[in-house]
Amino acid sequence: MSLDRKYNRMDVGKILARVATGQAHAEMVIRGGTLVNVNSGELLKGMDVAIAGGRIAYVGNAEHTIGPETVVVDATGKYLAPGLLDGHMHVESTMLSVTEFARAALATGTTGIFMDPHEIANVFGSEGVRLMHEEGQQLPLKVFTTFPSCVPATDDLEDAGARLEVSDIEEGLRWDNVVGLGEVMNFPGVVYGDPKMLGEIEATIKSGGAVTGHFPSEDDRMLQAYLASGVTSDHETVTREQGLHKLRMGMHLMIREGSAWHDVKEVIKVVTQDKVNTDNISLVTDDVSPQTLVEKGHLNHVVRRAIEEGVNPVTAIQMATINVARYFKLDQDLGSLTPGKCADILLIDDLKKVVPSTVITDGQIVYDAGAYRVEFPQFVYTDQIRNSMYVQRPLVADDFKLASRFGDRELTRVHVIGAIENSARTEKRTATLPVEQGFIQPDLEQDVIKLACIERHRGTGQISLGFANGFRLKSGAVASTVAHDSHNLLVMGVNEEDMAFAANELVRIGGGMIVVDGGKVLAQVPMAIAGLMSEKSLLEVVEEVAQLEQAWKQIGCPLNAPFMTFSLIALPVIPEIRITNRGLADVTQFKLIDVEIE
Amino acid sequence: MSLDRKYNRMDVGKILARVATGQAHAEMVIRGGTLVNVNSGELLKGMDVAIAGGRIAYVGNAEHTIGPETVVVDATGKYLAPGLLDGHMHVESTMLSVTEFARAALATGTTGIFMDPHEIANVFGSEGVRLMHEEGQQLPLKVFTTFPSCVPATDDLEDAGARLEVSDIEEGLRWDNVVGLGEVMNFPGVVYGDPKMLGEIEATIKSGGAVTGHFPSEDDRMLQAYLASGVTSDHETVTREQGLHKLRMGMHLMIREGSAWHDVKEVIKVVTQDKVNTDNISLVTDDVSPQTLVEKGHLNHVVRRAIEEGVNPVTAIQMATINVARYFKLDQDLGSLTPGKCADILLIDDLKKVVPSTVITDGQIVYDAGAYRVEFPQFVYTDQIRNSMYVQRPLVADDFKLASRFGDRELTRVHVIGAIENSARTEKRTATLPVEQGFIQPDLEQDVIKLACIERHRGTGQISLGFANGFRLKSGAVASTVAHDSHNLLVMGVNEEDMAFAANELVRIGGGMIVVDGGKVLAQVPMAIAGLMSEKSLLEVVEEVAQLEQAWKQIGCPLNAPFMTFSLIALPVIPEIRITNRGLADVTQFKLIDVEIE
Repeated sequence: MSLDRKYNRMDVGKILARVATGQAHAEMVIRGGTLVNVNSGELLKGMDVAIAGGRIAYVGNAEHTIGPETVVVDATGKYLAPGLLDGHMHVESTMLSVTEFARAALATGTTGIFMDPHEIANVFGSEGVRLMHEEGQQLPLKVFTTFPSCVPATDDLEDAGARLEVSDIEEGLRWDNVVGLGEVMNFPGVVYGDPKMLGEIEATIKSGGAVTGHFPSEDDRMLQAYLASGVTSDHETVTREQGLHKLRMGMHLMIREGSAWHDVKEVIKVVTQDKVNTDNISLVTDDVSPQTLVEKGHLNHVVRRAIEEGVNPVTAIQMATINVARYFKLDQDLGSLTPGKCADILLIDDLKKVVPSTVITDGQIVYDAGAYRVEFPQFVYTDQIRNSMYVQRPLVADDFKLASRFGDRELTRVHVIGAIENSARTEKRTATLPVEQGFIQPDLEQDVIKLACIERHRGTGQISLGFANGFRLKSGAVASTVAHDSHNLLVMGVNEEDMAFAANELVRIGGGMIVVDGGKVLAQVPMAIAGLMSEKSLLEVVEEVAQLEQAWKQIGCPLNAPFMTFSLIALPVIPEIRITNRGLADVTQFKLIDVEIE
Repeated sequence: MSLDRKYNRMDVGKILARVATGQAHAEMVIRGGTLVNVNSGELLKGMDVAIAGGRIAYVGNAEHTIGPETVVVDATGKYLAPGLLDGHMHVESTMLSVTEFARAALATGTTGIFMDPHEIANVFGSEGVRLMHEEGQQLPLKVFTTFPSCVPATDDLEDAGARLEVSDIEEGLRWDNVVGLGEVMNFPGVVYGDPKMLGEIEATIKSGGAVTGHFPSEDDRMLQAYLASGVTSDHETVTREQGLHKLRMGMHLMIREGSAWHDVKEVIKVVTQDKVNTDNISLVTDDVSPQTLVEKGHLNHVVRRAIEEGVNPVTAIQMATINVARYFKLDQDLGSLTPGKCADILLIDDLKKVVPSTVITDGQIVYDAGAYRVEFPQFVYTDQIRNSMYVQRPLVADDFKLASRFGDRELTRVHVIGAIENSARTEKRTATLPVEQGFIQPDLEQDVIKLACIERHRGTGQISLGFANGFRLKSGAVASTVAHDSHNLLVMGVNEEDMAFAANELVRIGGGMIVVDGGKVLAQVPMAIAGLMSEKSLLEVVEEVAQLEQAWKQIGCPLNAPFMTFSLIALPVIPEIRITNRGLADVTQFKLIDVEIE
């Protein structure tokens, strides 16, 4: 694990000691701010911070460290806070490259992230993880990786582009700045002794890394078994009671405020009402959309939400700085403004708003007065990553026709995937549909339209078909290669021609999201990086997504952010029913089922 | 680093998961206690703790984990607290072997220590450290070692039995349960870039260990330089102001209550008055005498003292459990009563007294109702360690005669080491002494008696002579091989015959402490282990020390614990003047000086 790209830590230490004792001058001194002291939990007025070699040399009255070459930054009237650290997030959710995400996040005060590149891992395995991680290492944002633990999400219901074994995790944990295991979603596997899950946990503990968790259940015995097996954190808590219980059981509680999940309001009550010790609590984003980044910010929005709910601003900032650093055993380098730490510093006017006017990382001003002061390096993904659409052949309308198993039926009863607005869950519904010339027909009257999931990682030609309800499309088709977690090519539409067209168009542009109608593209968000992330800037992506959402409306869908709900239709680890490249998956029974009911 | 002597951690995890989920029975269940929850900072009533494989499987209502073979311990009316962890101590100060210390400490609730075997390192180097560490690994007490960092204490003023280089520290850090670097006393060396000090710190950081500090100065710039160089803790703070400042600067503050240092009363005000966050504060003992162990206890006494000063008992216990575990990055295994942690548990009747009625470690009842329930293993030190007295030849009275450099003087002026009761400091005093037949004579009227320091590690025959004031001996002589930090053979007396006798007797019994008068031994504490530790039990050593103290009184010394003050007379890192095997050391000038003044 190394934070020092340019210098040896001990060499910097020597410089810092010389500056602190007045034998050498600081490179930069920030003067006269109100220090947010996350160690003692205080606000301290009139404090300077002296910086050299990218780290903090001295805190207090730093007059003696100022020489003729020292850059002096006036912080009068401002707060000085440590840069914010997001303890759990997926960069892929922002639809941006790591570089473009960094450009969006740094300006909001996020100076370090602990990303779980779970989505790209499902497409390109370790190589995808390695490239995103590598992209992160050259940025002014500190990018740490927790290595994805559950790839694929299920063994028996779907085919992802890759499968990560224990040996892959062991290898990844040796890379600099890979600091743990990504959220261990397969908690039943852990509890019931799945050798792969336990092997990954063991490798992580041996490496000294953090075993981050994912425990959405309310089963107390399962929770304790999960903890006893070595998992140490969770970010799936949605109730105060569960939050309090997890803390009492020694779990590091990551309270989440993402674009789709708004857990702060309820779970922060463990702080404001139960008044427990807060040192084992973090604030995280998990998944944020590009729109949220523009409209609300990033981790600073979560801190702000905690403050709005009544948390002391210093405590809220602790939960996004030192608590995170300590959980990942990086508090000797990050998370506080004290001697020896990386000089990742925010200047903030209003502590309750948490919007930095200046952002400093590694002792460099990267953002100030609304503009970046540094160039972001270019990172070019390999052709392999930019060519992720391995579909066997161009699709035709007939590929989307579903023959009835019962040759003699005029009507047939089928399972239907029922979508729920603003929810990751689906309902297992049924419908009676007409059969014409042996093929089962959708029925707009009942809001039952067609779904397809096309294997796109190995060109197997595999296509599964099914039916959806709840999206209320009236015409056209949609398609997406963001299709959790295996990210096959997911298509939905009211007619087979448009479904084939949407799929072919998406293959042609290298993946992403698309809406078509009557053989025309209404809107698309190209995502050339593994079919998951755009190569464009935040504002361009936000504009494209807005047009996409508009196009969904145009073909009839009234749901909020329907492309998000759609992208979860293939996720066979959340109840009740899904479609994967292998077929219709009944998640409650954890098996594939026929579309038609006998 | 390994805490699992018998089992693989993941195998235990599987057992724990089965117990938690009701698929297997616990080995032991402690029922119905009030849990001291150091994670949330609460007291929780009516809690059970289920144990299997030496670790905690389930916390709460553990009815479902109880089977016919399960040992059920009734904890009704009792508190359940994590075993106490002493974050900084020297076992040698107890004059006991690690095994006998463990026998003394476990009954008081200490279940883990982080020892710095600095004294034996000065006698036998890495081999001495290794043996004490090894002795610790077989005990029901968890013994972690921070590897001694400053051996010898000075390079130019004395000769210890060993010298530890960076390569020794690197090697030691690879041993299981060596978790960091022992108190880095040479803080000027760190601040001014001594390559050995920085090399040791670098090796420790690379190993993932904690760089523990020792910073008795009030120099803020030196402190920040010391922190910036990578040191992360301190246990030498004696004022509230310094304690608060160190916490604000991100230092882990270890508040000490030893036999000679009583820092809690003052320094705990950072908690009771400044009300800062307490998660970066620990309570430690540093040095405790065998008498203190008998009369007051061990770390539980420090916790009690904090409570007496107004700290909430739960907070006080946090400072001796989870805070320590987290500082040493062992909180996944130790320091709280939560699933997966080692089952090191105290049953306590009165939370303010902190005297356990039952002590459980690794799921075994080791102490209950005033008696041990386990056998302590025998540890036999090697002959090398038990033969540490390398004095060239038997000493004779003439060896202690000090010839004047000035042949013609009848009176001569000399430097005198002035002892101060209950203090580690000395005063540089002078006296005018008669010269008879060319030899400088002591003068009981002025309370100036003779001192000698005899090299005892390599049989060089080196003897240095000097004078002491303040001990008020009227007859006889005393000698000690506990003579910080080099532990040469220190002798003091009013006549040369008794000095030679005391020295020879101490050599004969293998080291320790002795008081003689008129050719007779009045009292002795044999310390065969490196001349530093007894092989006897706590109560035997306490009795011997009491007799020794009585014997000191008998020959005229009225001081409190004079053998302690005496053992520090050779320590050339604390002002103002000392005697080492090389001669008289002026600590303020950091050089050797002549006894006589020109």
